[in-house]
Amino acid sequence: MKTLSIELAIERLESRGVTVDDITDLVFDLQTPYVENLTKATCKYNVVRVLSKREVQNALLTGIELDQLAEEGKLQQPLQDIVASDEGLYGIDEIIALAIVNVYGSIGLTNFGYVDKIKPGIIAKLNDHADGKCHTFLDDIVGAIAAAASSRLAHSEEGAEVPD
Amino acid sequence: MKTLSIELAIERLESRGVTVDDITDLVFDLQTPYVENLTKATCKYNVVRVLSKREVQNALLTGIELDQLAEEGKLQQPLQDIVASDEGLYGIDEIIALAIVNVYGSIGLTNFGYVDKIKPGIIAKLNDHADGKCHTFLDDIVGAIAAAASSRLAHSEEGAEVPD
Amino acid sequence: MKTLSIELAIERLESRGVTVDDITDLVFDLQTPYVENLTKATCKYNVVRVLSKREVQNALLTGIELDQLAEEGKLQQPLQDIVASDEGLYGIDEIIALAIVNVYGSIGLTNFGYVDKIKPGIIAKLNDHADGKCHTFLDDIVGAIAAAASSRLAHSEEGAEVPD
Amino acid sequence: MKTLSIELAIERLESRGVTVDDITDLVFDLQTPYVENLTKATCKYNVVRVLSKREVQNALLTGIELDQLAEEGKLQQPLQDIVASDEGLYGIDEIIALAIVNVYGSIGLTNFGYVDKIKPGIIAKLNDHADGKCHTFLDDIVGAIAAAASSRLAHSEEGAEVPD
Repeated sequence: MKTLSIELAIERLESRGVTVDDITDLVFDLQTPYVENLTKATCKYNVVRVLSKREVQNALLTGIELDQLAEEGKLQQPLQDIVASDEGLYGIDEIIALAIVNVYGSIGLTNFGYVDKIKPGIIAKLNDHADGKCHTFLDDIVGAIAAAASSRLAHSEEGAEVPD
Repeated sequence: MKTLSIELAIERLESRGVTVDDITDLVFDLQTPYVENLTKATCKYNVVRVLSKREVQNALLTGIELDQLAEEGKLQQPLQDIVASDEGLYGIDEIIALAIVNVYGSIGLTNFGYVDKIKPGIIAKLNDHADGKCHTFLDDIVGAIAAAASSRLAHSEEGAEVPD
Repeated sequence: MKTLSIELAIERLESRGVTVDDITDLVFDLQTPYVENLTKATCKYNVVRVLSKREVQNALLTGIELDQLAEEGKLQQPLQDIVASDEGLYGIDEIIALAIVNVYGSIGLTNFGYVDKIKPGIIAKLNDHADGKCHTFLDDIVGAIAAAASSRLAHSEEGAEVPD
Repeated sequence: MKTLSIELAIERLESRGVTVDDITDLVFDLQTPYVENLTKATCKYNVVRVLSKREVQNALLTGIELDQLAEEGKLQQPLQDIVASDEGLYGIDEIIALAIVNVYGSIGLTNFGYVDKIKPGIIAKLNDHADGKCHTFLDDIVGAIAAAASSRLAHSEEGAEVPD
């Protein structure tokens, strides 16, 4: 039987069209202005560490489940329409993402909000609705993973603690 | 078609075995030590005001949906087993409840945690698993509504602001 | 003696160089793309309603107090240097701002992070450090008030609830 | 000059009458019902790991600073009276504590609220106000450290991840 693991988390992300490299690119763009000689490898390492957290895996699985159920029309009304249309006043996607952001401290809040608004790279792709997919939760979750990885990276650079 | 409303929120709660009076009783027990001459009517008024908030209705519908899907075995593994068994390290139910608690400020956090741990009244009933039901999300949501209504009541008593 | 009130909150903001109109401008810029025929008067009304909340007033007074104490060199080390320099890994300013953002639901998180990163209008002025002032907490608080007012406005426009 | 470190965090706690052993006792009492053969040494290890986090150290230093300033009458009114009297509607202490609780995921919320309400061991001592001290922030911070250490312990026991 399937158990909670980082492999499963990555598999689910990929099944929804998001790779670890996509999230790595977000982190690289967010942190390049602040970290000298930043490499993609360092960014990827931090994304992987975020994905190894059980809290993150639980948030990810729950959000993707709701997206998929909405896609298949299997939620009750009015939740079905609210999630399927990514209704602007529905904030449960942001709240689930917050569970991810908080794992590396409150400095991640800023990057999360920024990514959620600017919609760079993979986030824009998740939002284009062109392929009949529903990514109401996933776009926030991906932004939150990138924000948390950026926080982890910032803490590591400082070197004053072992963040994980 | 069904739309988001307080009537729908109350209907969904009742379909899962929870009445407004059940939550009113929790608030009455929580606040009686602090508020002189507290009546059930005042408590009920505050519960109703909490239930009129869109953020609360969205949290409630989402949590109950996940409970019902788990009950019917319709979630993917391993999320199905995690939610159905109310697995101790799964914290997404607490996070969704936090969206409710926060609506009347951070003083609700204490009451939420207390109710979640002590499991008074209806919360204990939701937790006994005797009837084959899954209330992994609902018990936290009910506790959160009671905590938020207690906060609202405390703010109103003080009279220094109109909280809503 | 001074008591907690919206007048006091506005007085404190002004004593630190921030007017209600400054925050109104932030809300107007944030919400103009989404709300047809939006007026400054509507934005201002929502800012005032946010400022009338006790949770918001408490966050504002606490944050400004820490800024002023840091300015006067009255905090113990190393907190003095951390706050005075707006140290990047210090996240308590974001956490206090979160108490404000949450008052109108989690949809405010996105706007808060965005404003905190982009630093439009008054936020940039608070961040220029040109005048020997410390605004480590205030810039986040002002962004949070603008984000909360934007959420309140979005909820009011929808008309599905009376948000306050 | 003093820099942020776990030694400094422990020194500050002790200067306010709280030892690592006091917090260890809280964790032991909270987790004994759930963890077989739990030892104080294991509890202490988890408390120390929580205290090694920068986010925790920042929250702790900020909260203790505000407590001490209130004790010395150095805050502006009305914040001075609000903090000195541990005013019931002031929720910034709970918000700062939340920054600590969240570091090991949302399952800590329940224990935090419970401890904050029941006031076991050292928390009761901090609350008795017998010695003219102000511990408005510290009691919540100590409860939050105990709750976070309990979460960390629960995650470690499960063994499904290396939480730090």
